[in-house]
Amino acid sequence: MPLPVHALPPEDRTLVDGVLAGQRRALAKAITLIESTRSDHRARAQQVLNALLPQTGNAIRVGISGVPGAGKSTFIEALGVWLIGQGHRVAVLAVDPSSSISGGSILGDKTRMEILCQKEEAFIRPSPSAGSLGGVAEKTREAMLLCEAAGYDVVIVETVGVGQSETTVAGMVDLFCLLQLPNAGDDLQAIKKGIVEIADMVVINKADIDPKATAVARAQWKNALHLVRRASPHWEPPVLTVSALQKEGMAEFWENVVKYRDTLSASGEFAQKRRQQSLAWMWQLIEAGLHQQFKEHPGVRESLPRLSQSVESGLTTPAAAAHALLAHLKH
Amino acid sequence: MPLPVHALPPEDRTLVDGVLAGQRRALAKAITLIESTRSDHRARAQQVLNALLPQTGNAIRVGISGVPGAGKSTFIEALGVWLIGQGHRVAVLAVDPSSSISGGSILGDKTRMEILCQKEEAFIRPSPSAGSLGGVAEKTREAMLLCEAAGYDVVIVETVGVGQSETTVAGMVDLFCLLQLPNAGDDLQAIKKGIVEIADMVVINKADIDPKATAVARAQWKNALHLVRRASPHWEPPVLTVSALQKEGMAEFWENVVKYRDTLSASGEFAQKRRQQSLAWMWQLIEAGLHQQFKEHPGVRESLPRLSQSVESGLTTPAAAAHALLAHLKH
Repeated sequence: MPLPVHALPPEDRTLVDGVLAGQRRALAKAITLIESTRSDHRARAQQVLNALLPQTGNAIRVGISGVPGAGKSTFIEALGVWLIGQGHRVAVLAVDPSSSISGGSILGDKTRMEILCQKEEAFIRPSPSAGSLGGVAEKTREAMLLCEAAGYDVVIVETVGVGQSETTVAGMVDLFCLLQLPNAGDDLQAIKKGIVEIADMVVINKADIDPKATAVARAQWKNALHLVRRASPHWEPPVLTVSALQKEGMAEFWENVVKYRDTLSASGEFAQKRRQQSLAWMWQLIEAGLHQQFKEHPGVRESLPRLSQSVESGLTTPAAAAHALLAHLKH
Repeated sequence: MPLPVHALPPEDRTLVDGVLAGQRRALAKAITLIESTRSDHRARAQQVLNALLPQTGNAIRVGISGVPGAGKSTFIEALGVWLIGQGHRVAVLAVDPSSSISGGSILGDKTRMEILCQKEEAFIRPSPSAGSLGGVAEKTREAMLLCEAAGYDVVIVETVGVGQSETTVAGMVDLFCLLQLPNAGDDLQAIKKGIVEIADMVVINKADIDPKATAVARAQWKNALHLVRRASPHWEPPVLTVSALQKEGMAEFWENVVKYRDTLSASGEFAQKRRQQSLAWMWQLIEAGLHQQFKEHPGVRESLPRLSQSVESGLTTPAAAAHALLAHLKH
């Protein structure tokens, strides 16, 4: 059960009140607390999060992915400014697979969205730079909840199209959108990578530069999307064209987002998807935790190298090695 | 370390000696012991397996997959008979995803390979019918080792193209081969399912029935295989045509299998792949074991339903629930 706000220590109570009042500074501070690796910070962060939990879930969560150069920042800035003009409040978060390796963040460059940054109704947060992709994703999920508690009704999670990060982001948003350049041939690359199956929408950016290539790409995408069995029987992913630089296509994009939400809400799939995402997230954390407990067990640490070696050289069966290692954890 | 044969109880010693002498009855009995779910049988099976382990690894392991109707049995029979004619000894095992659900076995019908069955140099074993796909796969891997100890120098693992079973089989063989009908359009289905990435060879069966469709299918497959990045830089998967019914194409098929083994052996990839498969198998068993220990823990069993419910309804964060559940297992 969530801890009542009045039971929190004064400092955290101020933080909770500040987030609920929609103060950007309080929100930023709360996210920093969540991103901290200090165990006392983690404990405080969980209490703050629990206190805010009843006020979460009210935003539409949109994932946007695309290769470097597809124009993600330009698109998100144009979309964000347009949404604010329509009365929305917009939070932008990032899951950056490079940040877990380099410690830096290729998406974290705030200056990329100069105009959106200056808007009172926008909140932009770079990707946390510590830990594994799993850790980054966990913190982004929690930051998303904080943004919702702070009253942002649109949360955009941005990621670069590398490795596991797209699946990770698709698993935390309501709608996953792939931003694409009008290059013919890219469609088969995407089929290969399994992206077609998780894309709820495909947006071809820079459509004004080469209308002919755009038309070809659009037809290829429609065909590719049509071939794949979808998660929802009620939604056929549209292929839209925009020019983020010219700020064209934002209204049509958002129209489709709203249509998606309304269609899946009517069928009950919208809420069901969120419930499934939460449970799947819990199980991911459990599996990761079990793996960590296993690897940190003194008996396992001592015998794992020797047994791995023995399995590799065919002297021990994998079953016998696994059995011996698991025996360390028996209660 | 493997237990020396003389340290085994007399009954198991006889079994080990029988397998090493290449007696089919002893081999069948040893596999039955391995498939048993009784814990005393499991313990004996592991000892028998350990005693035989030094004599394993000498066969070439070929996986063959295809949809029902592709002609797997006819192909394997024709290939097996041809191989025996060339002086080989051939074992055929099956991983059948349906057996874990129905308790029966669609691949287990011995009478399908009537001619091969009667050969002294062949050993055919249906899929074990108990447990999950993971359990079936584990038993098939161990049966494969027993066949090698019994002197079979070709082990064929057959599976039907459903769900996870193809990946499972690809993870236990040296060479994974997809048997395909000459139907245009099937290639995109395969891309979707990620089969192209794991196929080391594609064989179009029933090529004699419709040569025109076969030529089209062959070209499509070559194209599809070319688009995908391969595990080995030294092997471009060939697309072969056979007629299993007419016993045509067996020599060319085997020529390619041998070429595959020789090419990957020269680069060191052949042995490396086996080492990786063994380690991956060990880790799969560990993860499965950790999951089982977790689910069977009394504290977890008591609180899991309530916490799952609470996560689904948004009252508890997945992180808090995972944390609370993992705390049960702390030492």
